[in-house]
Amino acid sequence: MILSSIIPFVSTLNDVEERLWLDVLSKSMPNESVLPLRKLTDKERKLVDVAIVANPDPTDLQVLPNLVWVHSVWAGVEKMLQQRESPRYSIVRLVDPELSRAMTEAVLAWTLFLHRDMPAYAHQQSRALWQPLPYFSAKDRSVGVLGLGELGQQAAQALEKQGFQVQGWSRTEKHIANISCLFGEEGLAQILEQSDILVCLLPLTPHTEGLLGSENLAKIKPGAQLINFARGKIIDEDALLYELNTGRIKHAVLDVFMYEPLPRSHPFWTHPNITVLPHISAPTTPQSAAQIVAQNIRNYRHLSLLPKTVDTQLGY
Amino acid sequence: MILSSIIPFVSTLNDVEERLWLDVLSKSMPNESVLPLRKLTDKERKLVDVAIVANPDPTDLQVLPNLVWVHSVWAGVEKMLQQRESPRYSIVRLVDPELSRAMTEAVLAWTLFLHRDMPAYAHQQSRALWQPLPYFSAKDRSVGVLGLGELGQQAAQALEKQGFQVQGWSRTEKHIANISCLFGEEGLAQILEQSDILVCLLPLTPHTEGLLGSENLAKIKPGAQLINFARGKIIDEDALLYELNTGRIKHAVLDVFMYEPLPRSHPFWTHPNITVLPHISAPTTPQSAAQIVAQNIRNYRHLSLLPKTVDTQLGY
Repeated sequence: MILSSIIPFVSTLNDVEERLWLDVLSKSMPNESVLPLRKLTDKERKLVDVAIVANPDPTDLQVLPNLVWVHSVWAGVEKMLQQRESPRYSIVRLVDPELSRAMTEAVLAWTLFLHRDMPAYAHQQSRALWQPLPYFSAKDRSVGVLGLGELGQQAAQALEKQGFQVQGWSRTEKHIANISCLFGEEGLAQILEQSDILVCLLPLTPHTEGLLGSENLAKIKPGAQLINFARGKIIDEDALLYELNTGRIKHAVLDVFMYEPLPRSHPFWTHPNITVLPHISAPTTPQSAAQIVAQNIRNYRHLSLLPKTVDTQLGY
Repeated sequence: MILSSIIPFVSTLNDVEERLWLDVLSKSMPNESVLPLRKLTDKERKLVDVAIVANPDPTDLQVLPNLVWVHSVWAGVEKMLQQRESPRYSIVRLVDPELSRAMTEAVLAWTLFLHRDMPAYAHQQSRALWQPLPYFSAKDRSVGVLGLGELGQQAAQALEKQGFQVQGWSRTEKHIANISCLFGEEGLAQILEQSDILVCLLPLTPHTEGLLGSENLAKIKPGAQLINFARGKIIDEDALLYELNTGRIKHAVLDVFMYEPLPRSHPFWTHPNITVLPHISAPTTPQSAAQIVAQNIRNYRHLSLLPKTVDTQLGY
């Protein structure tokens, strides 16, 4: 039953970004009216069954009493789950093959960045120092992938194809072709102790928030390097700084932070052993995301089909 | 016919490097005596039929009147070919699968470095600037590989597997699975005009020396980026600086130079749009090279077989 063909777009984006999204979403759904929530009348709000969201403030969604589900244009939806009560609507994350491809590419790019000692060579260039560093073959380099969801599995397999020794870790047991998979607390200690390069691709959930705190970071193999392409809150930033300053962790590539944009005064910006990236590992392209959202909404309207929804207990 | 089991090692290496090579070569050839040339008596020099060389001064080899062939421990042998007369002995280059693997890895690593805008993000970090840059999918990025020998072919195929649009160029026509191959002068103009990222893997020969001079560099697509992992003399360094300063070439990753080590006063060290590497794209590991040299010398001694030798006219 179609209650309304008006779909509110609910976001915390700035005006320019919101207009861009409204434009591409409208073009990909010519039979729907995609509008900012504030433009809907009270009567229209009562008819809304589906909304499109981009990192929304969950309280904004309370004005939609008949909301059945929301479609996020991003993969991360943790803000909607961090309320006291589980939401009464279903949440659909963006599952975009182009996003997985870009993330796998980013994991490969920055793993090779660390594997081939690019930070050290940049430092040497700044001192006009010609000094070849010892070379290790990929087969002698152990890479640990934390998180074996869609993104983690693809990344682990791409690293394995590139010749690295790859291990994966997830909270519960998983089996992936060609990848040695560890799990649970014991498995975590093992992957931290054994990996030369650690890649964090975990979802942010109550179980993973602060998972890489001082206790676990102290288990990392001395001289190892770390990549965080997941969420900032998974790593304790002060504990990470401590391990970088002692030299246990040689270098960190960070794309995500506790607070984004990373405040200008934050010590990460100027740390010689940190590469700061502005949350660009897997950019959502609005065009690609809008096509996926449009297809899912068509399936809902015509076939009453909902895509896989987020398990609000697990958080992904 | 075995003239002698003494094999002179002829190099321009320093004492430490020479000792390292002599050590690993001797261990891999227990039935031969691998010695520095200076330790051979006049009588022994007359018996020598094979020598192992590392960037030798060709005049040093004149004291070996019965030399049949030399085995280089490196892939590049241009110095032995730059004499007025062709050498009367055959030259064998090192063809090491581990070297090809490391070079393919380096091409992928630094192509991704440019593709994912790592130089620009490093510059932004130095200014504490949080600014995501427009993302281009690999399928929208055209990469041109100059040189389709062993190394060029493998690199082109690895880039194609990574999703890039790949074209290759060689002086004479070649056919490689899945790669669009251009050749000759017209093909060169085309690949320079069309590539977003150019990777130079050409051998240094009279045909390629200075090939990327002011005339050809001016054909490069505005905003393109350049990687040179071949030999410094293929690119005119002044002409390259000019194109970097006008902004036609956005960034260059240079691993090889006219003079190595790159002199401390050279403007490349401090140029914001040049990444200087100390000739490390495909490091020869003495252990891996020595095993290949030993096998080739065993085949010569026992089966009278010589590996593929360098065409002194073509230079590779």
